[in-house]
Amino acid sequence: MTSSADVRALFAQYSEEIDEYLKQLFLSKESSIEMYGHLAYFMGFADEDLRPQDIYGGKRFRSSLCLLLVDWLGERSTGIEVATAVELFHNFTLIHDDIVDGDTLRRGRPTVWKLWGIPHAINSGDAQLLMVYEVLQKNDKLSADNKIAISQFLTKQYLKVAEGQYLDFVLTEAKLGDSVVSEETYYKMIECKTADLIAAAAKVAGMVAGVSEVEQEALFQYGLNLGIAYQICDDVVSIWGTSDNTGKRNYSDLLERKKTLPILYAYEKLSRKGKEKLLGYYNSGEELSLEDVREIVELLESVNVCEEMSRLINRYATLAKTSAENISLSESKCNTLRNIVDTLLHGVKKG
Amino acid sequence: MTSSADVRALFAQYSEEIDEYLKQLFLSKESSIEMYGHLAYFMGFADEDLRPQDIYGGKRFRSSLCLLLVDWLGERSTGIEVATAVELFHNFTLIHDDIVDGDTLRRGRPTVWKLWGIPHAINSGDAQLLMVYEVLQKNDKLSADNKIAISQFLTKQYLKVAEGQYLDFVLTEAKLGDSVVSEETYYKMIECKTADLIAAAAKVAGMVAGVSEVEQEALFQYGLNLGIAYQICDDVVSIWGTSDNTGKRNYSDLLERKKTLPILYAYEKLSRKGKEKLLGYYNSGEELSLEDVREIVELLESVNVCEEMSRLINRYATLAKTSAENISLSESKCNTLRNIVDTLLHGVKKG
Repeated sequence: MTSSADVRALFAQYSEEIDEYLKQLFLSKESSIEMYGHLAYFMGFADEDLRPQDIYGGKRFRSSLCLLLVDWLGERSTGIEVATAVELFHNFTLIHDDIVDGDTLRRGRPTVWKLWGIPHAINSGDAQLLMVYEVLQKNDKLSADNKIAISQFLTKQYLKVAEGQYLDFVLTEAKLGDSVVSEETYYKMIECKTADLIAAAAKVAGMVAGVSEVEQEALFQYGLNLGIAYQICDDVVSIWGTSDNTGKRNYSDLLERKKTLPILYAYEKLSRKGKEKLLGYYNSGEELSLEDVREIVELLESVNVCEEMSRLINRYATLAKTSAENISLSESKCNTLRNIVDTLLHGVKKG
Repeated sequence: MTSSADVRALFAQYSEEIDEYLKQLFLSKESSIEMYGHLAYFMGFADEDLRPQDIYGGKRFRSSLCLLLVDWLGERSTGIEVATAVELFHNFTLIHDDIVDGDTLRRGRPTVWKLWGIPHAINSGDAQLLMVYEVLQKNDKLSADNKIAISQFLTKQYLKVAEGQYLDFVLTEAKLGDSVVSEETYYKMIECKTADLIAAAAKVAGMVAGVSEVEQEALFQYGLNLGIAYQICDDVVSIWGTSDNTGKRNYSDLLERKKTLPILYAYEKLSRKGKEKLLGYYNSGEELSLEDVREIVELLESVNVCEEMSRLINRYATLAKTSAENISLSESKCNTLRNIVDTLLHGVKKG
């Protein structure tokens, strides 16, 4: 299997199974409690009036990766609950993130808080986090000890996601130039907020399948490095991507003055004069014009930020691919794991 | 043991142990991640600058009841994690409730969202919900199967709390006179939002101690009926209590037009003219004056709401006390369980 199209076709099988499981889960809930309807809406199983509907509800990347790995390393039927729990958790974070960021649209549809208000979105999101544990405990194909170990591991990773969200607030609230606004904080933030959940999705598959601890660690590193590469790639696209292929407006992260890696790296590398110029744009209270952001882009490009970001993305992608080699799979399956890395990163660039 | 003072002294032992466990738990967290500091502040272990401090952080009623029952029915040391998890969950709901209700003060101190903003309060609250599961899984004195059964049961009850919060929104958003604004919805709401967590605190103690299912059910009913009596009592106090003894302003629930049981009962009983008058006050857009609320109180008293509420509180209190008799405890301990009911209800009236 070599092409991105093949990888996408492979993932589609797993995401379909997860969607079916999720749909049944929401159908099993009392329909008069519309809180569950909000969640079914968000996942793509209902329209704004909570009537059944099938609409795109996300790639289900984390859960599909998890289920694929369970399938390859053990027995596919033992993985559906754990994979679904990871997907529910990821979407729970998005429901609350949309409130926090004030985002009114997600996947082209109004967000939960936009439709039903912030109180409902907080409470329905909380319910979805509880459903993560409801689903985790359902799995009766695993031993009780393994179930507890899995639940314990996932809880640890989930707490890291909350810590990552906290660090994201810290970066947003501080000013460029403050000591906390550093590459170190950025890496800690994306590792917690993004990469640790992908790492969890991969490692937990190994726990379900009962592979060795060495292999579990390889799975973790595969997911972690894939997640870091993915996030840096996303940050690059949010500056240099165009709205045609990303769905975001051009220079979106610059217009919002986000302190992502390209900015932090450039700030380190720039001359004193360049630093002052960048600080001027980033720490002024005024809205940035398109001309301003073009000037910022010029500053970034003057210290070869794009080349450095490519080098870093490549570095983490390579680390992920190398980790894949420590997982006991056929050469062809290992190769597919490597292709998943390229397909995911290519997908970010294409939008 | 007969007096309320004795019951309070008894509870103090357990709440102290829970506080100590909670404090250590928060101390074990990375101090640079101030998200945990927000939670320690809310629980009463830190001041606004996140410096260590011991201040009143709530009665710890649910967790103390749980730990007391574990102590009496089995081995005290096996109950601390489960009791703490119940306390963490209860306080998690309060952190998010304060956002939802826009409340700026809790226990005389600024709320989390008031100090650190809504995004932090959402995220830190989420972290506290995850800590519920972190603590639950820590307990290594229980069998793996029992741990899973406990976690499953608590998750079911926690989801009911979220359903109760949803029903509370429904009652708030609908108008008095709408068919959904009924005693049935009210009872379902308080059962889910309040009573099911007290029921859980009691039953889970029996699960930890390994008592029979019949006794577990008696514990559940004890907590459930206690919770219902407590909530009706609280609703009565929020109308007829004075700020001197409740800490709330006089007639607080009427000024906020809350659709609690006294209102719903009166609306059923009033003549057509009385109904119209009550609707006039409840469904008008204008702020209610003190004279208005006195008129509402007169309407309520014209159909003997106070007497009916006393009858109902007494009914659920008696149900709780009767359930206590089905738990295998000495006569003196059963008697204490009955006194707990009176002490809690008396405490609501005293504020």
